[in-house]
Amino acid sequence: MPIKSFEVVTKKREQIVDITKQVEKIVKDSGIKQGICFVFVPHATAAVIINENYDAAVCDDILTFLKQHIPQGVWKHDAIDNNADSHIKSSLLGVSQVIPVENGKLMLGTWQGIGLVELDGPRRRKVIVVITKIE
Amino acid sequence: MPIKSFEVVTKKREQIVDITKQVEKIVKDSGIKQGICFVFVPHATAAVIINENYDAAVCDDILTFLKQHIPQGVWKHDAIDNNADSHIKSSLLGVSQVIPVENGKLMLGTWQGIGLVELDGPRRRKVIVVITKIE
Amino acid sequence: MPIKSFEVVTKKREQIVDITKQVEKIVKDSGIKQGICFVFVPHATAAVIINENYDAAVCDDILTFLKQHIPQGVWKHDAIDNNADSHIKSSLLGVSQVIPVENGKLMLGTWQGIGLVELDGPRRRKVIVVITKIE
Repeated sequence: MPIKSFEVVTKKREQIVDITKQVEKIVKDSGIKQGICFVFVPHATAAVIINENYDAAVCDDILTFLKQHIPQGVWKHDAIDNNADSHIKSSLLGVSQVIPVENGKLMLGTWQGIGLVELDGPRRRKVIVVITKIE
Repeated sequence: MPIKSFEVVTKKREQIVDITKQVEKIVKDSGIKQGICFVFVPHATAAVIINENYDAAVCDDILTFLKQHIPQGVWKHDAIDNNADSHIKSSLLGVSQVIPVENGKLMLGTWQGIGLVELDGPRRRKVIVVITKIE
Repeated sequence: MPIKSFEVVTKKREQIVDITKQVEKIVKDSGIKQGICFVFVPHATAAVIINENYDAAVCDDILTFLKQHIPQGVWKHDAIDNNADSHIKSSLLGVSQVIPVENGKLMLGTWQGIGLVELDGPRRRKVIVVITKIE
């Protein structure tokens, strides 16, 4: 299958957007029954996480934690571009996730969803999805 | 090869359990000589890390660091379920690891082991292992 | 293709070394047009990140953040080996990255580079690179 991608338009400086449905659709459309799904964001001030998407407070808490420990405006890079905190947060969370696929479905747990983490928005972000088949 | 999994019963709220041997056995049984081994936990309050498993103090230090910076009971999600700290810790550490396989063995360094990180135990946890062959 | 690796000699205790060009060359030499590139370090006191490599201040800021929150010499493992902080930092950042490959090139964003993170140098470090083809 070719590599797929989709866009997400974020609305705040910091925001976690649930992208589970978009990724699930790409897995379904691929027709691949068993494999690994890779989700990657080609951005240095965004990230991808897998965590609870049922209670929105979990996402708020993750962003609050990051804000408390990584304030804005106190870093060297802030002299050039006022987003050093966004880069540090992105490095901590990471820009990719891997999820096993079985019976044509993502093997996510009951409380797991895939979240695009915007750390320097609002912006238009790209999400790349690749699925490898395993025989 | 089919996707494999095994269970780990944890005994404390926070605990790192060495699962290197279980993953190594799955690699050996697969007969795959060269590839990538994926380790994934389908949980939103657990994680998987790769780090030193020789001196148990390293695991204690990792859990102490997390506890110091992410206290329990002060988050929005705690109003629903008293484990917001576990979700934040899981997002920081991540729920998967990838390890190259060569000559039928995990290419872990001398001081590297695979650890299941329990962050809201004690519980019964599932670990999913997938190996892709590379030719 | 066989699994590839190269070495990096670091010069400080904490340092981020840009390894994008070395990884790009391995992708090019592999002749693989579409796939996933895995970058893995077999070390418990180093890490691999993907972040901005244009302004060197971003790397300084990441290391400063880690130093501020994870001091040296206050952990249990420090009684044995004075590098518990290095282990904790490595667990937070992670020892691998996955990057999609399209048209024979890494699909990194404009501001993304691959960095080997030395956390207990100076040392000689190994970087393992594996590429899976996707058809």
